[in-house]
This record gives sequence, C-alpha cells and structure tokens, in this order.
Amino acid sequence: MAIDHISSLFAKLQALSTSDHGSVVSMNIFVALLCACIVIGHLLEENRWMNESITALVIGICTGILILMLSGGRSSHILVFSEDLFFIYLLPPIIFNAGFQVKKKQFFVNFITIMMFGAIGTLISCAIITYGVAKTFKRIGIRSLEIADYLAIGAIFSATDSVCTLQVLNQDETPLLYSLVFGEGVVNDATSVVLFNAIQSFDINQINPSIGLHFFGNFLYLFTTSTLLGVFTGLLSAYIIKKLYIGRHSTNREFALMMLMAYLSYMMAELCYLSGILTVFFCGITMSHYTWHNVSESSRITTKHAFATLSFVAETFIFLYVGMDALDIDKWRFASDRPATSLAVSSVLLGLVLAGRAAFVFLLSFISNITRKSSKEGISFRQQVIIWWAGLMRGAVSMALAYNQFTLLGHTAKRANAIMITSTITVVLVSTVVFGLMTKPLIRFLLPVPSGLTPKRKNSTANIVDSASPKANTVPFLSNGADSEANLEPQESSYGRTPRSIRDLLSTPTHSVHRLWRKFDNSFMRPVFGGRGFVPIERGTPTERNTQNQWH
Amino acid sequence: MAIDHISSLFAKLQALSTSDHGSVVSMNIFVALLCACIVIGHLLEENRWMNESITALVIGICTGILILMLSGGRSSHILVFSEDLFFIYLLPPIIFNAGFQVKKKQFFVNFITIMMFGAIGTLISCAIITYGVAKTFKRIGIRSLEIADYLAIGAIFSATDSVCTLQVLNQDETPLLYSLVFGEGVVNDATSVVLFNAIQSFDINQINPSIGLHFFGNFLYLFTTSTLLGVFTGLLSAYIIKKLYIGRHSTNREFALMMLMAYLSYMMAELCYLSGILTVFFCGITMSHYTWHNVSESSRITTKHAFATLSFVAETFIFLYVGMDALDIDKWRFASDRPATSLAVSSVLLGLVLAGRAAFVFLLSFISNITRKSSKEGISFRQQVIIWWAGLMRGAVSMALAYNQFTLLGHTAKRANAIMITSTITVVLVSTVVFGLMTKPLIRFLLPVPSGLTPKRKNSTANIVDSASPKANTVPFLSNGADSEANLEPQESSYGRTPRSIRDLLSTPTHSVHRLWRKFDNSFMRPVFGGRGFVPIERGTPTERNTQNQWH
Repeated sequence: MAIDHISSLFAKLQALSTSDHGSVVSMNIFVALLCACIVIGHLLEENRWMNESITALVIGICTGILILMLSGGRSSHILVFSEDLFFIYLLPPIIFNAGFQVKKKQFFVNFITIMMFGAIGTLISCAIITYGVAKTFKRIGIRSLEIADYLAIGAIFSATDSVCTLQVLNQDETPLLYSLVFGEGVVNDATSVVLFNAIQSFDINQINPSIGLHFFGNFLYLFTTSTLLGVFTGLLSAYIIKKLYIGRHSTNREFALMMLMAYLSYMMAELCYLSGILTVFFCGITMSHYTWHNVSESSRITTKHAFATLSFVAETFIFLYVGMDALDIDKWRFASDRPATSLAVSSVLLGLVLAGRAAFVFLLSFISNITRKSSKEGISFRQQVIIWWAGLMRGAVSMALAYNQFTLLGHTAKRANAIMITSTITVVLVSTVVFGLMTKPLIRFLLPVPSGLTPKRKNSTANIVDSASPKANTVPFLSNGADSEANLEPQESSYGRTPRSIRDLLSTPTHSVHRLWRKFDNSFMRPVFGGRGFVPIERGTPTERNTQNQWH
Repeated sequence: MAIDHISSLFAKLQALSTSDHGSVVSMNIFVALLCACIVIGHLLEENRWMNESITALVIGICTGILILMLSGGRSSHILVFSEDLFFIYLLPPIIFNAGFQVKKKQFFVNFITIMMFGAIGTLISCAIITYGVAKTFKRIGIRSLEIADYLAIGAIFSATDSVCTLQVLNQDETPLLYSLVFGEGVVNDATSVVLFNAIQSFDINQINPSIGLHFFGNFLYLFTTSTLLGVFTGLLSAYIIKKLYIGRHSTNREFALMMLMAYLSYMMAELCYLSGILTVFFCGITMSHYTWHNVSESSRITTKHAFATLSFVAETFIFLYVGMDALDIDKWRFASDRPATSLAVSSVLLGLVLAGRAAFVFLLSFISNITRKSSKEGISFRQQVIIWWAGLMRGAVSMALAYNQFTLLGHTAKRANAIMITSTITVVLVSTVVFGLMTKPLIRFLLPVPSGLTPKRKNSTANIVDSASPKANTVPFLSNGADSEANLEPQESSYGRTPRSIRDLLSTPTHSVHRLWRKFDNSFMRPVFGGRGFVPIERGTPTERNTQNQWH
C-alpha cells in the first residue's frame, strides 16, 4: 500500500517543477515511510534477527530502488544527505535521551573502563586503520589520497555509532555491555572531534613528542569543558524549575524548558567547537538526576515518554535516510568503472575495522580486568567478544564524516573520492545489516542466561523505555527513604569490605568516590537543585507507588 | 542576562563569515530567547494585561532593536521570515493540538454559527476591506496597486489568527466565545485558500453570476474534502493502533504514530492543494475521539501534554519571530521616505479591519439568535462585542500572506509593495499588542461573572491544558457508563422537549443530528475504531478515576 502511494506521489513529483511543492512531496513520502517503519517494526518485533534500524534501512533501500526505477535511473534520493539535518536535528534528541534514560550507577561504576575504551581505544583503532589503509591502498590502485586523507579514514571508521548500539544492546538484559559500548560511543565523539581538529591544525610531516602532549591536553580540555557545560545547563534547568514552579506547576512549561535547555546545551557546545554529543549526554544525566524530580507527576511521565519517542523517531529517520541515500547513483557510476577496486577498498576497510576494534577491545579489557577484584566482576571473554562485535557497526556518523571529508558541497571531484564515498556506504550497509542482524543471536548464543540484573523483560524489547527510564532507576531507593547512603545495589555491596589486595586497593577509589559523591550530593547539591526527596510537593504521597503500578 | 548573552553571541556572528556557523549562532539565540520567553511568561502569568504571545512579541522586538544597534543599522533579523518554516513546521502542531483539545460538544452544537462566521463572515469582511481600500488608496497616493492586489489585501486582513485567539480566550471560562472565535478562525482558513485561488484563476474584469456559484462550489468541495481527509487519517490511526497493539502497548510507537499521522494529514492536504489547517484540525478531533482512547494510560498522558507543549513552543516561536522580523530595515527605509503615506495606509487598514469585522459579527449574530430558542442560549450583545474584539488580531498568517503577495523572494520591487509590507507589520503589531492587551480586561469588564460552564478555573490559566484536554471532555460520561445516550449536558437537556415554535423547529435538527450521530457512533464507529468504552484493556478498572485525581 505504501509503495503504491509513493509511486503515485512520485509521478506528481516528476510533473511538478516548483521546488516548493517538491519539498512537500518529499516530506509526505518521508513521513509515510516513517509510519510504515513503525508499523512493520512492531510486526517484526518478535523476530529474533530483525531490529527497528535494519527494518528502516531495508525500507529505505527499497524506496531508493523504486525511485531510481521510476526516475529512469537519473536520481535515487528525494533529500540529499545533509550533515546539518543529521547533526543539528536528529542526533541531539537521540543522545540526550540516552543520557536521560541511562542507568547512571552502571555508567559511573564503569567510568574508567569507558574512558579507556572511548579515548585510548579509538586512538588504537584509528592508528591501525590509518596504517593499514596507507599500506594497502597504493597496491590496490588508489594513489591520489594524501596522508591527511588516510588519517581521516582512520578517524571516520573508528567512530562507533552510538545510535546502532542503542538498537542492538538492551540496557536491561546486558547492563554492563550496554554501558561499556554505548559509553564508549559517547566518549568516542570527543576523541573524534580532537582527532579531526588535530588533522587539520598539525603539520603531519613534523612529528615530535610535543604533539602527543598537545593532543592529550586538547582531549582533556575538550572532555572537561563539554562535560561541565552539559552539567551546568542541566543544573541551571533544575534550579530554574525548582525556584519558579513551587506550587504552580505547568506541564507545558516544564516540558518545554527541559527540551529547549537540553537543545541549547548541544547548540552551545557546537557554537564553542566542543563535543555536542558529550555535552548533551551529560545534560541528560544531570536532568534525570535533578530536574526530573522537580517537576510534576504528569511532566515526569510526559518527559520520559516524549523524549524516548523523539529519539525513536529520529533513529528511525536516520536509518531510513541512510538507506535511501545508499543509492547515490552519481557516485556509484563513478565507482562502477572499476568494480574490482571498489570491492577491494570496501573489503580492506571492513577487515581493518574488525582488526582495529579487536586489538583494543581485548587489550583494554585485559588491562581493565587486572584492576578489578574478582573474575566475576571483570569482563569475561564472551562479553569481550560481544563488546567487539556490537561496536563494529558504522552508521550515519561515519557517513556524515565521509561526506564532509570527500565531497565538496556534494560533488566528488576526484575518482578516488567517489570510491571512498561508495565504500563508506558499503561498509555502513554491510556492518549495520550483517553485524546488526547477528548481534541478537550472538548474545543469545554466548550468554544463554541473561547476565543482567533484571532479566524479567527478556522478550519485550518494546518495553525497554519503560524500565530504562529515570523512574525505574530510582525504584531501588524508594523502599529505603530519601537519604539512604547504604542503599547500594547487590553488585556493589561487596565493595563494603576492607581492602585485602592490590586489586582491592585499585577498585576501592571507585567506591570511595561514589560514597563521597553521595554525601556531597545529599548535603549540598540536592538542597539547592532539588532531586528525589528534596522537592516539597508530593513527597511521601502514595502517587509514586500508584504511578509505578499503572504506567509500568 | 539573556541580553548580555546575545550581544556576545552576536559579536561572534559578526566575526564569523561561514554561513554554517552563522546558523548555529542564530539557533542558539532563538532557543535561548524561547527559554527566556517561557520563564518571563511564567513570572507575568498573574498579570491581568499580559499574555504569553505579547511577552514573546515584545522580547522579539527588543532583540531586533538590539541586533539592529549592534550591526550598525544594517540588519535586524537573524532569520528571514520564511513562509515554509511557518506553514510547514509551526502551524500544524498548533492547529492539531487545538483540534485535539477542543471541547467537541461545544464545537458541534455551534457548528452552523461557526460555519456562518467562518465562510460568510470572512467574505463580508473581505468585501468591505477590498471596497474600502480601493476607494481610499488612490486618494492617499498609492496608485501602482491593481484590483487583484486590493482583493488580496481584503483576503489578507480578513484572516482571523487562530493562534492569537488561543492566547486571549479561555476555553473553560468562556466556552461559547472560544468555540465561536476559534472555530471561525479554522473555517476561515478554507475560505482564504478558496479566495486566493479565486483571485488567481478568475478574470476579475469579467464578473458574471456563475462566478458566485463556482466560488460556492469550490468552497464546499474544499471544505468537504479537507474535512474528510482529516477524519480519514484520524480513523486510520485509530484502526491501526486498535488492530496492532492489543495487549502489547508501546508508548513510543503509539505517540510516534499519532504524531506522524497527524502531520501526514496536514502534508497530504497541502500536497492536494486543500486546506491543511482544516484537515489537521479535524484529524485532531477524530484522534481525540477514537485514537486517544485506544492507547495505553501513559500514552494518553504523554500525548495530551506533549502535543500541548509542542503547540505552546510553536506559538511562542511564532510571536518571537514576528517580533524580531518587525524591524525589516530595508522595507522600513523604503517606506520611511513617505511617513505620512505609511501612517495613513496603516490607519486605513486598521479602521477597515475594525469595520469589516463589526459588520459581519453583529449581522450574523443577529441571524444566529433568531434561530435559537431562548435569549439565554443566544449570543448576547456583550458577547458579540467580545467576539468582535477577540477576532480583530492579525498575526503570522497575515504576515505570511502579505510576504507572499507583495514580495518576490523577499525583495520588494515597488515602493507601494514595501509600504504594504510595513503596513501589514504595523497592523499585526498594533492589533496583537493593543487588542491583545485589552481583551482580558474587556472580558472581565463585560462579563464580570464568567459565563462558562466551569468557572472553577477562573484564575489559573496555567492549567488550561489540564482541563481542556480529551480527558476533561469525557469526564461527564464516566459517571453514566459507556453508552449513555441520555447523558447530555445541562445546556442541551432543554432540547428534549417537543418543538413549540418556529425557533424550536430550527434548533431541533442540531439535537436530532447529535442523537443520530451518537447512535451511529456507538453501533458502528466505536466497535470498529475503538474509542472510550470500546477498548478491551483497562475497561472498568479504577485507573481512570485514579488518573483523574492524580493528573488533574
């Protein structure tokens, strides 16, 4: 039905020459396809292979083929891939929602490992890919690329796609893996920004030790400022809502303020050339810790679900978009003159992505395991394989970076650049479809009993958001009252003993930091910025319990 | 604080030549201003003169002045007024939400009056304004305009701005006035589209009786098809959600589907050159009657508040935008050569707007009162004054139409056109600020005791949405069970008697139509499309009552 619809609409598109009405037509097609993706995604939900992103990708590719056929091979896309659309409108809600719904404790307990994966891991992967590309591309027959291009390719294909991760890993089934791979994807963004700036500003030919130091300093600066900006915006929103809205709650204003301030944090980071993804992620975390507890009950339900839905629609949109843009016929025509070269480039890139990720995942997991107390808490080999596999997907971020590096306003000047674009598309499609399709079965094969803390939702991925929400996050606290310092989750309670070995000494700081933070949070932060238990209204009322029963 | 922020940001804007980063800067300023509008709007909420739209307009003008000063008189706006932005992104959520939250009974009871106001009233107003302009403009000194321009001016200044109406009239305090003025604004849009098409396609010089018939036929066709398209999309969403989601509710998908299908209805109407406003309004009504009852409890709360918030943000955005764009320095420079002419044009237009609206409001109210049974149910003179006054505001719709008619891609070729643009801006600003400021006091002066059925919410405008929601709308039914045919509101129960006079005969059809519709709805529509009482889950559970206590 949707296909018939599109073909008739496309006939209209051909008939109309005005660009104004043309954009209305493309909007119609896109919105109709989004609806189709949601309905089909729902129908395929119980399928053990598929997920929503692959559904959208496949629908996008089919539509692209249809349009290509209808237009007589002239054009395959309605909208040209636009970095702006992606980075300004689609990415912020996804990353903000991820921060808003992330299990904070799981994230901060694994903070050091995540930082290692995101920063050092990306560098290792980038180095391996750059080295591999520089060694092999000359032999394949691509000679017009320079060393800056090789470095860029390294950075492009080291970018783990956080959006894909959200689709294949379940926060409730595999909380450790989710927090590691997704956290890595977020930190990775800061590394990518630094890498890209480094490539542009440093003279590659003059390598000396100070560059490494400069690079490290830049990364630290970027990471710190981006995080602080996000936390600051989140706290500001909490403070404004707490100060202004006592006794006079308006869901409209609360929701609007949270949404706008989250977006503002992202845009301000972009304005200051910081990492918007890091900023908006930490803004989401701060808002779920403070702001979300300062608003009325209906605002909590609304924000929780509305942010999740906006993120869901943006994700579906991205995959649909990437699928439709995959048949960029001009570039394929360029590349199709030498199909063997294109195939070789894509294969080399896929192989390097696999190797680069394998190198750092297993190495850094080994280092991380040394610092952990018991083997039970460490990352098992099976988990390492999943971390390696689940982070292999390259998505819209890689596409956007590749378009940025290898095209000038959408036109590929050189043949090598066209081949790079088509290869990127190939790598994105193959990695998303093949690796994506196999992640769910792989997890079931390697971890037959869910390793997560809440296995009850094993088969209902539709309900992820319901439990992965700020509300679910606070449920353990509700039984113990407001200021329960001793209220640590089972996994963590073993930290309570005295240190016994070198591994204990290494793991203790995490716990101490956490305890100090709790003390500081309860004494200084919550009284000022609100948060659970520090908002006068609705405290101790039975609504909290009712809500949980009803809206769960 | 916000001003400091902007000035430093603007300095950056000046320093940067890249348009890419420039758009990031403008986004930042806009989002920051939106936050400021929300906070200031909240602080001024208790003020008896101000409303949110005027706050946003004033902040917009102040920012415009500041930017003008900072840029040394060169430019006053960050974003150029774009019809696309307004008609494709900002207007649909506002009108959809209005349909979604409208009191359906009030709307349909007054349906005939609303149609008269929206269709015949707009024509009368348009005719008067066109005639007045044609008679006076030559004398003032504007000679380059043609008869098509005069007709366009008539259509532009007959467009009641639904967005302004939502701001000044309270659905709970004055339900009759709200439904009349707002309903008129919605129907008016269809009339405007027909008028504009008529102006473009008919040869004005050859006036014959068939044109009137043709015009009437066009209006009927447009009104019917637009309404049917909206109802069809709404029913489709209800059917899809009812069929697909039994037992497996996902708030994400439900909310996303409702949002996307509502938007799709608007875009499809635009695609087929119908009235998108009418379509999306009726789509909202259908969705609140069927779809909204088919989704889970958390989806109901989320959709109710999220649609209201999106509409609220879009409204604030529009007024901010109009305010910032008011200082369109190029056009003002053109017009400032002859300040007397500009002033005269603006005054004439304001006078004609007042006269045109007065003519049809009092005339049509008189006709409407004849057909009503008792004077208590009719529109009193005081109410007529408020209807006249509250519909005087001209807003973003008039601006967009004026830019469409009198500029070619933003450039005004002729001096007369520049004067028309600045005059439109003047009329919009004066009518919104002056008439808008005086509406609240006028209502309190003329109707000291609220005439509405639910006076309990008199002083809490912040809670409008909470009670003007689909839920509030169904409250009267809850007590009597699902199929309560006799469950009519007090105002309507007097219809139950046998007709006694000619007025009774005229008013009876409304009641009969309503009863027949209820029967049809209960027997055929609800079993297929769902709706309150016809959804298997959560039927008869106490959640409905609990919800009301909690979220009200």
